[in-house]
Amino acid sequence: MLPSPGGADLYVLLRYHLGWVDTSGRPAESPISQGKAIRPTLCLFACEALEEHLSKALPAAAALELIHNFSLIHDDIQDRDRERRHQPTVWSLWGVPKALVSGNAMQSAGDLAMLETVRLGVSPETTLKVSHLLTQSYLEMIQGQCLDLAYESRTSVTADEYLDMIAQKTGSLIRGSLEIGALLATDDPASVAAFSRFGSCLGRAFQIRDDFLGVWGNEATTGKAAGNDIRRRKKSFPVVFALEQATGNARNDLLQIYQREQLGEDDVERVLAVLDEVGAQAHSQRLTEASAEEALKAIGSISLPHWAMEEAESLVDFVAKREY
Amino acid sequence: MLPSPGGADLYVLLRYHLGWVDTSGRPAESPISQGKAIRPTLCLFACEALEEHLSKALPAAAALELIHNFSLIHDDIQDRDRERRHQPTVWSLWGVPKALVSGNAMQSAGDLAMLETVRLGVSPETTLKVSHLLTQSYLEMIQGQCLDLAYESRTSVTADEYLDMIAQKTGSLIRGSLEIGALLATDDPASVAAFSRFGSCLGRAFQIRDDFLGVWGNEATTGKAAGNDIRRRKKSFPVVFALEQATGNARNDLLQIYQREQLGEDDVERVLAVLDEVGAQAHSQRLTEASAEEALKAIGSISLPHWAMEEAESLVDFVAKREY
Repeated sequence: MLPSPGGADLYVLLRYHLGWVDTSGRPAESPISQGKAIRPTLCLFACEALEEHLSKALPAAAALELIHNFSLIHDDIQDRDRERRHQPTVWSLWGVPKALVSGNAMQSAGDLAMLETVRLGVSPETTLKVSHLLTQSYLEMIQGQCLDLAYESRTSVTADEYLDMIAQKTGSLIRGSLEIGALLATDDPASVAAFSRFGSCLGRAFQIRDDFLGVWGNEATTGKAAGNDIRRRKKSFPVVFALEQATGNARNDLLQIYQREQLGEDDVERVLAVLDEVGAQAHSQRLTEASAEEALKAIGSISLPHWAMEEAESLVDFVAKREY
Repeated sequence: MLPSPGGADLYVLLRYHLGWVDTSGRPAESPISQGKAIRPTLCLFACEALEEHLSKALPAAAALELIHNFSLIHDDIQDRDRERRHQPTVWSLWGVPKALVSGNAMQSAGDLAMLETVRLGVSPETTLKVSHLLTQSYLEMIQGQCLDLAYESRTSVTADEYLDMIAQKTGSLIRGSLEIGALLATDDPASVAAFSRFGSCLGRAFQIRDDFLGVWGNEATTGKAAGNDIRRRKKSFPVVFALEQATGNARNDLLQIYQREQLGEDDVERVLAVLDEVGAQAHSQRLTEASAEEALKAIGSISLPHWAMEEAESLVDFVAKREY
């Protein structure tokens, strides 16, 4: 295990997680994946689409990325994941106590960034509103994570329950990003509501595509072995769908395999075969694309500049078809 | 391990930790220790002492207690402590992932409570200021926790380094509680500064007394076995002091014992004997009382109602002499 960082060195763990430095705090030499930065992108996009300028949303964008990364550091502890973005995770290098603390520090840094919004000419009222929205969004995210943990130990989860869970776990911060960006640009409730709806649909598309990649993704692009989520007995959307659709032997096999402590490669193969049988792959992608379309419809209900609709389309297209 | 809580059931873990309900969420029958509530008490005290009313500080007081308890839930995970306030800890009942998540939820609940301040007729500017102060205080607390972890793996830590570390780990939230209470009552910088200084000294007195109780406390009142901090090789103030003062065999024994993976009862006895030799018990209590006196001097520099000075005296007296 790496030596304990002292007071200020705590931030080395944060910078390392963000892909900026190596484990000793030196600037990372080779380009390291720093994630997709979906949430700040969405926040800046909403603000710019409604008001032409995005500068007011910069602290919020930073805050959202920090909060998202705080949740990743803690997720890795919970899931005992040793690798993320092709790099060893914080807890696997420095141990659980320090990873836990550095996640909390990342969150506080995010909260502080959000409160800085007031310095950019945004009113204290609006700054309070977006701070409140950020905190509420990640409280909802936490509730979703908790439901996710609860579902792991349940035999069966309906597709509706699952979609409700991911609306909280993934959807809330994505929706929050767009609502915050919109609120920083306008007081018009219809515009904020349109971006909120856009976020809900986009969040669903994003998570279902994530679940898709967790089963049928390519290791070279996702950084995770194909079938990884099956191997870890994750009840992601394709499996939830299969549990609803499969009958007879297929269903029994699925239930039995998911009750084992550890899965062998033949178990993984069998699960993949059942998913095939019920058409889980095509159904998952259909749901992703339907949600993506719904997202565009929501944003199409208000008047936005031409460039913004084009950007929204390519953004939605990326989310629905991404390979990583 | 207890069954996983679902979405809303997450709050059972929070209420349980706070001593309000049992593990199944039913109101606790026998009175359960709910902690000393030092931070909210200090916050309300500062507000009332400066402005006669404390109602404006109620959300802040709740926030401070929630933030403090969030840090306790995470501390118990870090230290693998199975008991707190005579009850099993959250992680020991529900496992690390759920404890981690419930700590984060407790923190968010605290942040949200603080943002509610604006609803009580406090200006958005002041609400932002106290939210900022709260976040900064616990970021400093986190930095202190991190230093504490780093010191655990170092052979020797000077008393000055140690005092600086506890000023962050314990002092920052206690100081923050008083600053927040003062800021909600007045804009006068001298008054806020006096309460801030009061908090710094009180925080030191509080932690050194805590360290005292960790070594020489009574299990019946503290809920922890006497010598507990020695058994866990904690470098608390008495040990740091002894490492600075002891020479020859005494110092060598101390260093050797603190390098062992696990301590036997004879090791604990030997450490206690060395502490005795250098007068660590008397010195620790002297430092607590000197800090307590300094705290009163700080608050005595501004004009406060008679009742407030009396309250301050009994508060300081409690902190310096408490048995739990």
